[in-house]
Amino acid sequence: MTNYKAKNRLTAQAYIDGVLSGNRVILSRAITVIESNLESDKLLAKDIIQAILPASGNSVRIGVTGVPGVGKSTFIEVFGKHIINQGHKVAILSIDPSSQRSKGSILGDKTRMEALSTLESAYIRPSASGDTLGGVANKTAESMLLCEAAGYDVVLIETVGVGQSETAVHGMTDFFLLLMLAGAGDELQGIKKGIMEMADMVVINKADGDNIKKSELARLQYQNALHIFPQSESGWMPVVTTASSTKNIGVDAVWDEITKYTELVVKNGYFNKNRNHQKIRWMYNNINEALKHLFYGSKDIASKLTALEKQIIASEISPVKAAQDIIETFKKSFE
Amino acid sequence: MTNYKAKNRLTAQAYIDGVLSGNRVILSRAITVIESNLESDKLLAKDIIQAILPASGNSVRIGVTGVPGVGKSTFIEVFGKHIINQGHKVAILSIDPSSQRSKGSILGDKTRMEALSTLESAYIRPSASGDTLGGVANKTAESMLLCEAAGYDVVLIETVGVGQSETAVHGMTDFFLLLMLAGAGDELQGIKKGIMEMADMVVINKADGDNIKKSELARLQYQNALHIFPQSESGWMPVVTTASSTKNIGVDAVWDEITKYTELVVKNGYFNKNRNHQKIRWMYNNINEALKHLFYGSKDIASKLTALEKQIIASEISPVKAAQDIIETFKKSFE
Repeated sequence: MTNYKAKNRLTAQAYIDGVLSGNRVILSRAITVIESNLESDKLLAKDIIQAILPASGNSVRIGVTGVPGVGKSTFIEVFGKHIINQGHKVAILSIDPSSQRSKGSILGDKTRMEALSTLESAYIRPSASGDTLGGVANKTAESMLLCEAAGYDVVLIETVGVGQSETAVHGMTDFFLLLMLAGAGDELQGIKKGIMEMADMVVINKADGDNIKKSELARLQYQNALHIFPQSESGWMPVVTTASSTKNIGVDAVWDEITKYTELVVKNGYFNKNRNHQKIRWMYNNINEALKHLFYGSKDIASKLTALEKQIIASEISPVKAAQDIIETFKKSFE
Repeated sequence: MTNYKAKNRLTAQAYIDGVLSGNRVILSRAITVIESNLESDKLLAKDIIQAILPASGNSVRIGVTGVPGVGKSTFIEVFGKHIINQGHKVAILSIDPSSQRSKGSILGDKTRMEALSTLESAYIRPSASGDTLGGVANKTAESMLLCEAAGYDVVLIETVGVGQSETAVHGMTDFFLLLMLAGAGDELQGIKKGIMEMADMVVINKADGDNIKKSELARLQYQNALHIFPQSESGWMPVVTTASSTKNIGVDAVWDEITKYTELVVKNGYFNKNRNHQKIRWMYNNINEALKHLFYGSKDIASKLTALEKQIIASEISPVKAAQDIIETFKKSFE
């Protein structure tokens, strides 16, 4: 194992104390450790997470998603300021598996959400980079725990880019908010099947000027559609509203709905039940990914799979037999 | 390996010849071999599947699902007869992972679909039993290949019982038909999230007598809802109709839509693309299940997991660290 130490690292205890005391600079540096792929940082990150774990969890976790162009950044900026005005501390994280291409988020936190980023009670962190969605999601989820331990009692996790990460965000948040635009049709192509049914709330954004009537119509359509679909285990009936982030109309109502939701699910026990499920599922997702990595990471397996795929398409071998054959190869590789 | 031979088995070649010549008795006996859990039968099944593979695939595969009480059996009976009247041969299979409890389907093929089962061009086979959904799905999918090789050019695969198997059925069929009842609400609780978005067609069944008006209203609601949701890669816009299976109204229209669908997707290339994807996915599903079986089948792992789950819920260990620890245990077990 390569065990070289990264420059400028503090001791584990210094990170832990800094995070627990709400020191923003140390929080940022701790998240950098979490995001790092250096082996020495991974060990350091484990110690930090393990120590702050009991102090984590005391926040409302909100997932925010929507296709590019829906106005997510503007919405989050206005929404974040509103929450802060209610006396909360807000952390904003994002999941963007595509950002690995540029090794970092395309737009830094300074460019996006300019007004919000100057506020003392807001903490904005662009997406971690990583090789796999699972890896990126792990880093974001662990960063979320650090933010909570640092005293942020509302965490927004946004998906950036076009939708692969919605399920990951849904799996680590309490409330799932979907931003949409009126004039359904082309815009919807970016929304993957199944996303709509995860939504606890749909906000038709950009409902201003000439768009108001169209937005109200879209609201009714979505409201009807969501009522037809099966109810969530949470007992919450998804709400559809319109909003204009630029005119600051309807954004406060989103927070009101989230407050209502939280009251409901804390009372009926779903809040904790869901959190526990998420944690357990998080472990199993990591296990299953590691197992796949063990298997698909092998060179022999990869080349054999390519050959089998061709044979399957040519109807030369049944998919079941192909799977059995390659699992035998895998087992023998351990002997 | 236990290698005892089951009684009354034919040679592989006898099964292969019988199936390919469309002999129904041999087809049934071949499916019994596919469904068997005896090691000797598994080897025999492999040889049969491998030999008939090139003759399989020439059918329209239709998945039929809906909550209990929706009238699935009656619908399939009337629908099957209509297809046969159009000159087709119809095979009807089912996926019912719950049937393992009674080691066989609760209602045999003779009781259900009585009229259909007497027809020369219909082949009805109750669900295979098995320990896992994946195992049952494999058996049904391989039975489907046998039916195709025996000349059945329409295969209906129905889900029996309450919904876990819809995704499996969707993954092995060309067209996914969802039967619903008017008066949305309670009935919908049985439909899992995401099922609706898989449907190529929704039929509001029992649209007769006092139910006609309510059914037409439901039809409009579902039609609107489905139009709002993202379009399928197939290029097909899901259709919603009403039908009364008992009065034989609207059942023929279902076949008309399926014919339209098939024409569209054969022409635009989705039919073959989807079939190839399904075959490849089928192999990977089997591989991933086998990997999980290797891992979770170990006694040490199982007891360690129970302990870790408790620690995770008590916030004593992070899910990521828990997963890393147990994967290390797994790797060491091979050393």
